[in-house]
Formats: sequence, structure tokens, C-alpha cells
Amino acid sequence: MNWLDAIKWDHDGLVPVIAQELHSGDVLMFAWMNREALARTQELKQGVYFSRSRQRLWHKGEESGHFQEVHDIRLDCDNDVVLLRITQHGHAPGIACHTGRHSCFYQSLSGTDWVEVDPVLKNPESIYK
Amino acid sequence: MNWLDAIKWDHDGLVPVIAQELHSGDVLMFAWMNREALARTQELKQGVYFSRSRQRLWHKGEESGHFQEVHDIRLDCDNDVVLLRITQHGHAPGIACHTGRHSCFYQSLSGTDWVEVDPVLKNPESIYK
Repeated sequence: MNWLDAIKWDHDGLVPVIAQELHSGDVLMFAWMNREALARTQELKQGVYFSRSRQRLWHKGEESGHFQEVHDIRLDCDNDVVLLRITQHGHAPGIACHTGRHSCFYQSLSGTDWVEVDPVLKNPESIYK
Repeated sequence: MNWLDAIKWDHDGLVPVIAQELHSGDVLMFAWMNREALARTQELKQGVYFSRSRQRLWHKGEESGHFQEVHDIRLDCDNDVVLLRITQHGHAPGIACHTGRHSCFYQSLSGTDWVEVDPVLKNPESIYK
């Protein structure tokens, strides 16, 4: 069986994907892939996603230069969630978030308030020219 | 604004949730929450999810005893994905997966084959009596 057929694609032909930084363990982002995106990710060893808003393949870094080197592709027990273990390139420390932060998960619940706990490392306007 | 209203619930009233072990950084599981599940998680400081297959709240550990202590609730830049940082209780090392493994993400792509790379720590039949 083709390794892509092991995956339970949802009714839109997508699978949720978690991108985790290998060296730190930080969860950097969450996105979606279709079959072609995952095949490209495996070929290139770089993160290629499917943008639901733009309805097209999205090679992470194509605009920002912040490519993701993929070390490991994991699949969960139900075959319906993918975990990538990556190095986030293009800036040090890596910037995975379109807000210019290291991780997309920079809002933390404090009591009953969401608080921004991680800094902007680079102005997004200088990332996306 | 109520902190729960900050979240962009999907058309089923759900949000995807990643559970990450705080001390190791390991991504243990992926699940879904509705509004009530997230409110209960915040109150109890334990992982409470919404089971899509059973269409009901699912307090992780209710059958297995493998409760999740929640240290931090994070929200991503688009307000549509939640990250929990947890301690997985009930066994050492923690068992988050219904297969008796530490993490649900135990299948790794090797070339074009999915290979099981993490051991079963406890027989699932002895977990779910």
C-alpha cells in the first residue's frame, strides 16, 4: 500500500498537521495538508502545506524565506493527524508565525485573560515585502 | 469579552487541541474541544475533550485513570487552535495513547514505510477493563 493511502483524509481531503521544532520541542504551528502537500513534503524534506484560505499549496518560506527542514514525519494512532519534527530556518531563533514570532502559540490563558507571552522577533512588514 | 469568545470555533462548534508534555516537550495527542470542554479544562486544570465519535464530553482519564494535569493553555495567532501543556498522570512514563503508548505519534515515516518506533508501555486490555 502506498504510504499516503494509510492516512485517513477528511471529507475535504485534508489532514491536520502539527509542526514541532526538533531541537527545542516547541510546537511552532498548526496547519493542513492535502495528499499533494504531504507528498511534496516527503520529497523535498521541507514543509509544504495546503492553505485553506487560498485553496492552494503553500510551500512554507516561499514568501518569507523561513523554510522548514523536515527531519521526521509522524502519524498518530488513528492515522488522521501528522506531526512534523523540523528545523525552522531563515532567522535565529526560527520564526514560524506570520506575526514575526517564534511560535504561533504565543497567547497564554492567565486566569480568564489571554496574554501575549512571546516577543515579536522581526517586524512582519519586513518579512513579507 | 469572555475568554471563550476569543476562540474561533469551527462550524461544528469545535476547536483542535494539541496536548504537549511540559517536562519533555513531547507531543502526546491531538483531540477536539467544544466550549464546555474548554471551560471544564480551565476550571479543573485537567484535560477535558469532546469526543467526536461518541458526541459527548470526554474527561481524559475517566476510564483509564490517566488524567492530564494542565499547566498552561495556549492559543494560536488565528485564535483557532489550542495547545495544552500538561503532565500526563496515571503511569510512569505517562501514557496518553489508547494503544498503551506514551504518545499517539508512534508511527514514523521511514522512506515510504510507516514504522512503529515507540513501545507499548502497558497492555490496553489492562488499562480499559
